[in-house]
Amino acid sequence: MPILPNTLKTKLQMQTLTVNLNTSYPIHIGQGLLDNEALFAPHVSNKVAVVTNTKVGPLYLDQVCTMLARLGTNCISIILPDGEVYKTSDTLNSIYTKLLENHCERKTPILALGGGVIGDMAGFAAATYLRGVPFIQIPTTLLAQVDSSVGGKTGINHALGKNMIGAFYQPRMVVADTDTLNTLENRELSAGLAEIIKYGLIRDLPFFEWLENNMEALTEKNPDALIYAISRSCYNKAQVVSEDEKEAGIRATLNLGHTFGHAIENGVGYGKWLHGEAVAAGTAIAASLSETLGWLNDKDVERIIGLLKRAHLPIVAPELGISRYFDLMELDKKVENGKIRFILLKKLGKAAICDNVSRELVEKVLKANTR
Amino acid sequence: MPILPNTLKTKLQMQTLTVNLNTSYPIHIGQGLLDNEALFAPHVSNKVAVVTNTKVGPLYLDQVCTMLARLGTNCISIILPDGEVYKTSDTLNSIYTKLLENHCERKTPILALGGGVIGDMAGFAAATYLRGVPFIQIPTTLLAQVDSSVGGKTGINHALGKNMIGAFYQPRMVVADTDTLNTLENRELSAGLAEIIKYGLIRDLPFFEWLENNMEALTEKNPDALIYAISRSCYNKAQVVSEDEKEAGIRATLNLGHTFGHAIENGVGYGKWLHGEAVAAGTAIAASLSETLGWLNDKDVERIIGLLKRAHLPIVAPELGISRYFDLMELDKKVENGKIRFILLKKLGKAAICDNVSRELVEKVLKANTR
Repeated sequence: MPILPNTLKTKLQMQTLTVNLNTSYPIHIGQGLLDNEALFAPHVSNKVAVVTNTKVGPLYLDQVCTMLARLGTNCISIILPDGEVYKTSDTLNSIYTKLLENHCERKTPILALGGGVIGDMAGFAAATYLRGVPFIQIPTTLLAQVDSSVGGKTGINHALGKNMIGAFYQPRMVVADTDTLNTLENRELSAGLAEIIKYGLIRDLPFFEWLENNMEALTEKNPDALIYAISRSCYNKAQVVSEDEKEAGIRATLNLGHTFGHAIENGVGYGKWLHGEAVAAGTAIAASLSETLGWLNDKDVERIIGLLKRAHLPIVAPELGISRYFDLMELDKKVENGKIRFILLKKLGKAAICDNVSRELVEKVLKANTR
Repeated sequence: MPILPNTLKTKLQMQTLTVNLNTSYPIHIGQGLLDNEALFAPHVSNKVAVVTNTKVGPLYLDQVCTMLARLGTNCISIILPDGEVYKTSDTLNSIYTKLLENHCERKTPILALGGGVIGDMAGFAAATYLRGVPFIQIPTTLLAQVDSSVGGKTGINHALGKNMIGAFYQPRMVVADTDTLNTLENRELSAGLAEIIKYGLIRDLPFFEWLENNMEALTEKNPDALIYAISRSCYNKAQVVSEDEKEAGIRATLNLGHTFGHAIENGVGYGKWLHGEAVAAGTAIAASLSETLGWLNDKDVERIIGLLKRAHLPIVAPELGISRYFDLMELDKKVENGKIRFILLKKLGKAAICDNVSRELVEKVLKANTR
């Protein structure tokens, strides 16, 4: 991690990472970036379509359009209803209609201004409108800044499953302005911290230790702590994704806590648990399962649980019934030949992909970790 | 063109071309290929989803499923209503629903059995289901065999425009069985011939001359003539597409006749003119415009018109009103900064991309070529 300091002694300037895939793109992380037209100048033409929602739009749309106007760029605003329930083909169609009505062309960029749902939908619209137009992401939640802004996953839900329809599509640029986190609810902030903790657990023990030393700076929204944690998270994700763009192997480790987490989100009804909350409880189960396999000791598990708690995250999953958990986990996209794949921890800072965990063991751990 | 003979003296065996893009894939062209399980063996797993329609399904679905059963592969049949009017997001959603209900996984291939509409929709479903699953094309119309099976364009229509939503997505394999053309209506056969003639015109004068010598063998469905013409067409398209996968430059030459053609199809109401018929009339206009610019002489234009006529194709476009033509052409995806792009002919066998043809010239030619 040479690009980033491990302490908070220095005031952090804007951080810029480069993600190298078939195409490479920059991720800019810092304060006040929504006013920084120089960042946007290389990527916009005479107009851009800004996709946002009824929650984020009133907070930041004017600011973004004013900044773009200084570049001579006209904003077409596409304001969607807020919430995961609207991540549907109907909403997607309403984006297409607006793009067509406004004569958006192949070179007209689509800019996503919002959290993960906006990024997923705007990104999928960009991937599929006229078979692909330029895409720029301005994630405004911590979760979107550390997770969905790296990796190119875009998509919508289907009545029969979450994120079942989508495409891998890389943005031209990601702009994570930590000032947008000032309007974020604490619960949403914590949900983002769940994914940040995950990066430490799966591949970056020094970062996990940094988080143990700095969790309160993050929950109090200290800008330098946020810039550091977001940068180091994006760096970790970019490293993994660069090795495995299409999710054939190592990328699966990013799903620590997600197999259980998706089952929780789906089982209690989408929208009740935030994604990051479900991942936190799922991570606690994965830690427990790793301990049962003899890979972690009780002290390791305590450290994980302790850090999740300090991030104000749930560590106990809801009781849905064991067989319901299995049914839900078998719906997961990562299922192959009917086998459920678990991401577990060989040790703190090292994930393992496990296709052959016995059902009995999983049942035992589920029983111990749900109520 | 070393891979193909220029006469029909020898009996043609199956032809196999390889398209080299980021990924390369084979196109097999010949008779009896739907019974040839060896071709399919490397690409299928325990199940495949076969997408077809109510017209093609009754003719060839049993044959394909029987062949796949010999490989131990189970067919999930997804039978769509027949026609371009169904190339919509609703039909696409019905494909997703069937795939999810049948627990299709990331490794389950989607096989398109039908014409261009089926290929476009099944291909787009394959591009976007679980963010991408393997795709195999069995084009059963001449048009699909020479056009949509090469190049990776997939997509659906939107209420405001044709093919506005889609993705570039390459198949794992294309199987063009000329036996399937035995059940094709003559009008559909001619529509395919329009695209075949196009390849000669834009980049392959010897092929154009071969077509002048062999058009009746094609309209009479001589298998060897068909295998030859399909192979040489796919070869030409593959060459162009390999140079320009994402349609940044030279690929646009494949749109000879298409700017006018799309306007015709849209202007008279989709479904009245077949795509190939509209392209034929559009090609006649493009030839006339090229003559006006001094690039073709009257003899060249006569040869083009003569060949289109022998393929039983229309050479006069419908009268829609000149300004309506311009409105329709401005809707085209290829419009950039509001400029209409025409593909014209510098000479027989050589296309040119023209962004700066004066409106007056286009009006004059349109007036002369519509009634």
